Amino acid sequence: MSKIAVMGYGTVGSGVVEVLLTNQASIAKRAGEAVDIKYVLDLRDFPGSVIEDRLIKDFDIIKNDPEIDIVVETMGGINPAYQFVKACLCEGKSVCTSNKELVAKYGPELLAIARKNNINFLFEASVGGGIPIIRPLNQSLTADEIEEITGILNGTTNYILTKMRDEGSDFSDVLHKAQELGYAERNPEADIEGYDACRKIAILTSLAYGQQVDFEDIYTEGITKITAEDFKYAAKINATVKLFGTSKMVNGKVLAMVAPVMIKSTHPLYSVDDVFNGIYVRGNMLGEVMFYGKGAGKLPTASAVVADVVDAVKHKGKSIMTIWSEEKQEILPFDEAEHRFFVRIKDSEGIIEKAEAVFGKLEMIDAGIEGEHAFITEIMTEKEYREAAGRIQGIISMIRTDF
Amino acid sequence: MSKIAVMGYGTVGSGVVEVLLTNQASIAKRAGEAVDIKYVLDLRDFPGSVIEDRLIKDFDIIKNDPEIDIVVETMGGINPAYQFVKACLCEGKSVCTSNKELVAKYGPELLAIARKNNINFLFEASVGGGIPIIRPLNQSLTADEIEEITGILNGTTNYILTKMRDEGSDFSDVLHKAQELGYAERNPEADIEGYDACRKIAILTSLAYGQQVDFEDIYTEGITKITAEDFKYAAKINATVKLFGTSKMVNGKVLAMVAPVMIKSTHPLYSVDDVFNGIYVRGNMLGEVMFYGKGAGKLPTASAVVADVVDAVKHKGKSIMTIWSEEKQEILPFDEAEHRFFVRIKDSEGIIEKAEAVFGKLEMIDAGIEGEHAFITEIMTEKEYREAAGRIQGIISMIRTDF
Repeated sequence: MSKIAVMGYGTVGSGVVEVLLTNQASIAKRAGEAVDIKYVLDLRDFPGSVIEDRLIKDFDIIKNDPEIDIVVETMGGINPAYQFVKACLCEGKSVCTSNKELVAKYGPELLAIARKNNINFLFEASVGGGIPIIRPLNQSLTADEIEEITGILNGTTNYILTKMRDEGSDFSDVLHKAQELGYAERNPEADIEGYDACRKIAILTSLAYGQQVDFEDIYTEGITKITAEDFKYAAKINATVKLFGTSKMVNGKVLAMVAPVMIKSTHPLYSVDDVFNGIYVRGNMLGEVMFYGKGAGKLPTASAVVADVVDAVKHKGKSIMTIWSEEKQEILPFDEAEHRFFVRIKDSEGIIEKAEAVFGKLEMIDAGIEGEHAFITEIMTEKEYREAAGRIQGIISMIRTDF
Repeated sequence: MSKIAVMGYGTVGSGVVEVLLTNQASIAKRAGEAVDIKYVLDLRDFPGSVIEDRLIKDFDIIKNDPEIDIVVETMGGINPAYQFVKACLCEGKSVCTSNKELVAKYGPELLAIARKNNINFLFEASVGGGIPIIRPLNQSLTADEIEEITGILNGTTNYILTKMRDEGSDFSDVLHKAQELGYAERNPEADIEGYDACRKIAILTSLAYGQQVDFEDIYTEGITKITAEDFKYAAKINATVKLFGTSKMVNGKVLAMVAPVMIKSTHPLYSVDDVFNGIYVRGNMLGEVMFYGKGAGKLPTASAVVADVVDAVKHKGKSIMTIWSEEKQEILPFDEAEHRFFVRIKDSEGIIEKAEAVFGKLEMIDAGIEGEHAFITEIMTEKEYREAAGRIQGIISMIRTDF
């Protein structure tokens, strides 16, 4: 029997306990032995709950108990999660976490400790909730050189964009409704500004290329400037707007960004709607694969954490995550990134000719919206776009495209 | 360095060689050591090819060479693949195969030998080509009790059905064109009669529930009776027709079948078109996930085989596939399976009333096709449907629905 400790009895932590208790028998079968929750660490009390008699408030009890060889971290945030996780790994205890901030910031350091001690630091739940993506990247797509990973990695923003498209509503109205329904947090900044997606694409990119990509180095733009009008134009060309976290290999460097992107209906992620997440991976041999599912939620996320626990039990004494060194991955300067740009501009005398003079050939889109024009440029770099846009008056907004 | 042998230099086997040579450096990094192809076994000659000097015709050379500890089997079929694979495993050599017939028929026996010898029998490429599904089922979805696996598992039939829908063409015309384009084989029976999908869903079902499901026990119906008219009716209710391989847990028994199924546009597999495969899995904790990609083709399939080779190198001395016993999984008698049925019936005096008398309440669909009617029944068992259909004249065709 394996005895484990769960640190943090919030949404995901209590989900982990629920999954372990509900599927006890099938989990024991797959792990090869029973998995027993010996401690739950939380500063709060949970009188009457199923874990009442296992609740502890002192981390040292876990650290110093030689019976515990696997620890689940579902506290979130950096402090004290980082200190606790590191202490566990240094004591030779495997750790399974759902904490994307922790993994994005300290992943390679914690993996290196795990490797040295022949234990495991696993974090399937840190990206895509219940969708298996970390393990496939680490163990299934190993024959390929990864050319691109693009994901709809944040359910809240995908829900908001889907509603904006379907109902023709504006961003702030939908956000407000999403907050009422509990789909968006009271303080939604981490989601709507793209910070959450940024941590996740940093993790995926680091794993895909085997070297550290710092999330601070990834160009990140949220969805707050997207409007109902943008969706009207998109609909005219059989397209929509999604918040993508994306990384692509371009001339041996990695282009990484989080930004709203206009995509056509032929894109594999086009029909990933509402709170669902989708992750598209292109390999040089494999071609395209996509993974789809609920990217958040108590039980889906807990299911991924527990799958890591099962792996940790099965692989005692052997480190199975291998490819993520602390060495830095070279990042393409964002100025050199190339796209076609969707641009809206205020109507004025000779504005189309002026736009053509600075942007070159334009693909015009008419959505019947008065007082403005919209077009898609040819392929140009971010720098070229910025310089061109600086030479003309009246630009309302811009969205990068993926076609 | 790991030295391997490849048995069978056909489409997939030559793809395996190409993947190993093209991505040599990244594969070595992920495997932890270089992977060298020492032998290629094939009865044919390949003068001038890259493997000319490694080509052998005698299997015993592989079997008796202690330097070879991993063997790739890409010959296909049962004989002599079964004898060769078994001999390799008995000699303590891990085997990676793309051979779905072999895995469906002898999977648990070969896995048991691998387990006993602390080596690996791996078969990611046997289902879904390059889509990771075997490893996710074995290693990622381990916290869940699987409630359903449904897949579009055969690219040829999905291509045919997609063209029939998009072009309004009949089955035989599209099949003929697909054969000309090389998307369908000259002898297309294994695809269009559902036999290929049947082997694949047998493998997935056995893995999901940990016990053997014989493919002979799975109700299997192909797409040869699907017509252009069926798609006209489907379009009227925002639906389409797909060939599903499906297994569901129903009251502790497994309902397994391969059949054309009418699905609505809200189904996660609705937009899996052309030669693409999609596999939908529902777990009791996880909810719904879906895996999508090219289910066949030289390099995608080879990529999956080589990922298995990487895993075999990384796990020398440890058997990693665990849950598939030779014990038989109890199967729900197909007569007890429940669906709503889409039925077309010839027009005649009072036919609607007669149909209601035998089938109960009907949801009529009008696609403007003369001389017939179409409807969807309430939920009923296969047996109830068959008995009701026996009591009425003029039924043109029937398709099961998934709504």
